[in-house]
Amino acid sequence: MRNIKLTIAYDGTRYHGFQKQSGSGLPTIQATLEQYLTILAKDAVKVIGAGRTDAGVHARAQVVSFFLPARGIPTAKIVPALQGLLPGDIAAVAAEEVDQSFHARYSAVAKTYSYTIYHAPVPSPFWRLYSLYVPHHLSIDAMRRAARCLVGEHDFSSFQNTGRPVASATRTLFRADVEEDPPLVRLVFKGNGFLYQMVRIMTGTLLEIGRGKLLPEEMETIIKARDRRAAGPTAPAHGLCLEKVEY
Amino acid sequence: MRNIKLTIAYDGTRYHGFQKQSGSGLPTIQATLEQYLTILAKDAVKVIGAGRTDAGVHARAQVVSFFLPARGIPTAKIVPALQGLLPGDIAAVAAEEVDQSFHARYSAVAKTYSYTIYHAPVPSPFWRLYSLYVPHHLSIDAMRRAARCLVGEHDFSSFQNTGRPVASATRTLFRADVEEDPPLVRLVFKGNGFLYQMVRIMTGTLLEIGRGKLLPEEMETIIKARDRRAAGPTAPAHGLCLEKVEY
Repeated sequence: MRNIKLTIAYDGTRYHGFQKQSGSGLPTIQATLEQYLTILAKDAVKVIGAGRTDAGVHARAQVVSFFLPARGIPTAKIVPALQGLLPGDIAAVAAEEVDQSFHARYSAVAKTYSYTIYHAPVPSPFWRLYSLYVPHHLSIDAMRRAARCLVGEHDFSSFQNTGRPVASATRTLFRADVEEDPPLVRLVFKGNGFLYQMVRIMTGTLLEIGRGKLLPEEMETIIKARDRRAAGPTAPAHGLCLEKVEY
Repeated sequence: MRNIKLTIAYDGTRYHGFQKQSGSGLPTIQATLEQYLTILAKDAVKVIGAGRTDAGVHARAQVVSFFLPARGIPTAKIVPALQGLLPGDIAAVAAEEVDQSFHARYSAVAKTYSYTIYHAPVPSPFWRLYSLYVPHHLSIDAMRRAARCLVGEHDFSSFQNTGRPVASATRTLFRADVEEDPPLVRLVFKGNGFLYQMVRIMTGTLLEIGRGKLLPEEMETIIKARDRRAAGPTAPAHGLCLEKVEY
């Protein structure tokens, strides 16, 4: 069997997240991919995704891995073949054969997510599905100062929604940047792993700080609380995008 | 009565064009706007659009004009009130009171349209509704040379689809630029008026030149033919966007 690493991009708007939901019949990225890969492989294919993005979350470079029979469709033909089959909101970007031990989720050493805010007096119809619209004032400086506190190794329990209990909530954040490209504000988070809805809760908290409802100095206290109730609200899914997975 | 000039932006994907189609029940930009303006005015409002965009065509700054009773909602409140009513794919951008003689269509002296091409080996899910995907080679230089021939006053009969007969097919094009911003190629046309589907036929012709099916020198011959059959195909609607209307 060949172990294949496939990079895909998708507009998550009409999907109920990445992960297959057995028996629900709801469209997911995984179910859609497996459906077409099974056609190409002429045998059932099960894919593993690097990040299990929520409903409405997008990806510019999600990575999945799966096994294909040694014979059959050549690796170089996978991307063009998928391009002909996949709906327009999912694109196959690149495919390569990798070591048998490669696992899209467990082999990942870093993931980068962006959260896009459309910050203007009037919303844009073109950004409505890919950003959170924020018309009110935001102190970018305050958000930057607070974001800096998130960088490093911490117990991120305050930024985890219940639903997927994990053994340890300790993660390392390599980057937490606030980039301005008017009318866009883009939060970029790079870490060795992320808890369930962690990026959306960090974003919701930074937005509270940006609008002055919380002080940047409070971020330290929020981290130390290790309590979900200490942090801000969970920002909506549609501003979030999985940008990159590193191995 | 107050004469109001309103600038709007819209994602045309789910609309059957700008113009109201009596009795069809199909969603159009005009019908949607009139529905909400009638609520605000507490009386039937009829809007005039600067450009009657086709189904699937977008606008970053379409201009409409309409009359409102002298009393009633203040002009400054129109944009925020519409923002609360309009669906997310239409945005009210600016409103001002103008002279009684102002007419969104007849007072316009120039319109600018862009046509966006996504030119890359792999399509993007995020651009699929706002650009034409072109994976094959394009000679930007050939397209530029041919586009230059379109500038000036010409009889543009070769670039007009039947359906809306006009007295004269003579129009002046002030600009026909090919801008590169990889992976995007953007064609920008500014003119004193455009025939039915003229931008899409000019684009379809430039794309034939870009891929080498026609020579740039043939553009002169195509213009002179004054025959729709001389030009290239009509490019799809979803790459087109009304960018600006000048008065």
